[in-house]
Amino acid sequence: MKLLLKIAFDGTEFHGYQFQPSHRTVQGTLTETLSELFGEPVNVTGCSRTDSGVHASYFVAAIEPKSEDSGDWLRIPPSKIHRAANDLLPRDISVLGAFPVEDTDFHPRYSVVSKEYVYRIDDSLAPQPFMRNYVYAHRRPISDAEISDMDSAAQRFVGKHDFTSYMAAGSKITDAERCVYSASVKRNSAGLIEFRVCADGFLYNMVRIMAGTMIEVAKGRLSPADTDKVTEAKNREAAGETLPPSGLCLCKVTYPFEIGWLAD
Amino acid sequence: MKLLLKIAFDGTEFHGYQFQPSHRTVQGTLTETLSELFGEPVNVTGCSRTDSGVHASYFVAAIEPKSEDSGDWLRIPPSKIHRAANDLLPRDISVLGAFPVEDTDFHPRYSVVSKEYVYRIDDSLAPQPFMRNYVYAHRRPISDAEISDMDSAAQRFVGKHDFTSYMAAGSKITDAERCVYSASVKRNSAGLIEFRVCADGFLYNMVRIMAGTMIEVAKGRLSPADTDKVTEAKNREAAGETLPPSGLCLCKVTYPFEIGWLAD
Repeated sequence: MKLLLKIAFDGTEFHGYQFQPSHRTVQGTLTETLSELFGEPVNVTGCSRTDSGVHASYFVAAIEPKSEDSGDWLRIPPSKIHRAANDLLPRDISVLGAFPVEDTDFHPRYSVVSKEYVYRIDDSLAPQPFMRNYVYAHRRPISDAEISDMDSAAQRFVGKHDFTSYMAAGSKITDAERCVYSASVKRNSAGLIEFRVCADGFLYNMVRIMAGTMIEVAKGRLSPADTDKVTEAKNREAAGETLPPSGLCLCKVTYPFEIGWLAD
Repeated sequence: MKLLLKIAFDGTEFHGYQFQPSHRTVQGTLTETLSELFGEPVNVTGCSRTDSGVHASYFVAAIEPKSEDSGDWLRIPPSKIHRAANDLLPRDISVLGAFPVEDTDFHPRYSVVSKEYVYRIDDSLAPQPFMRNYVYAHRRPISDAEISDMDSAAQRFVGKHDFTSYMAAGSKITDAERCVYSASVKRNSAGLIEFRVCADGFLYNMVRIMAGTMIEVAKGRLSPADTDKVTEAKNREAAGETLPPSGLCLCKVTYPFEIGWLAD
């Protein structure tokens, strides 16, 4: 039995998700706090290895005891775990719900069906101070027509493509084919521009490079149709800049089954 | 001639508004940056001396040159000042607009007609990590009926009263009479509870103590009508706790004339 947790975290003060001995990480913080909560060492596995400064409003972690003969380790009812965990966790991580899974083959990363990211851009000449850690401050107003072009360009990502052009140079991945299920660019009710993309998987820095390419479209340096040429080039040089991690947030993860998160 | 600036700031990393020689303050940061911008030393006067950790989404500062014979110091058109200032300011302060005033008697603090503050409470068992610096995390769900009681209690603040009970102990103010124009408690669209209060002026810690008193109402320790007894006691001991500064934000300042803020 594994316990799944739905969590949210502010990545600003974390050196990414993955454990590093001498840095504050999401995995390290969760492992330490949840081992304390369950009274024995636990392994924490995450749905994604998010980078330093990247946020998540919907991240899934799986917990299980390190020892194989730990018996009845889950002494807290799953629906109460968010209360107990949030009492102990620092304020930049929050447990939103829990769900036990019996399927021992389940892996929070390998079992993923789709993930959705949002990249937020503040294009105001007077950027909102309260949002500064959660956006890329572009400091050049983007018009409705330009947003419409960005949206048209984003929709060209949809489908199965080789996304080598949108992968950090030096990445060791050999199969860069991914299937993008949806992609859009819109201004939200708070006045921020949101680039949303949902896919079966993502290459290293893929969303941040795609967002940088959308900025090239906004500036008129690339037409929406040019995005196809960028993709076809299979060359990192053809795409836009890698935008900063602050604007990026993992906002949904789906699995082959619906999860009825428990939180009373 | 004075130049008025509408600004917003995230108070988390400031030791309050007012200048302190060895600490990072809003006034100190504005004075340094705007003196650089205008090419000569300027005086910066603010509409309020907000405390360490308190935020503002609408704060008014007045700028004038230190030297009396500085002549034509305002070389930048007021409508362009936000662009130039935000290029130089740190990301936790933003200039939203500017407006020149000829009235030499105008003072951003003494000329105030009303100020409105909002105090935000996150009552979730899973507090939002992204809002942690902008709320008080109460960690006990507050029901609709309790919010309705808090709202009734808040409305009893309206009118001219002696607010000694809601003033930090040890404050040197002798006239504690203030006129509250409006006060309410509601849940906002993001799920946070907002206590809003508008008055002709505020005593030291007044909104934070009023918010702490609203928490006593939510817990049922005080009925809405008991708020009158707290006020009549004219005794700090009668009111609730002083809630943390993180939840507090100055959100509007008005003057005897309408200001048509310039920002192109």
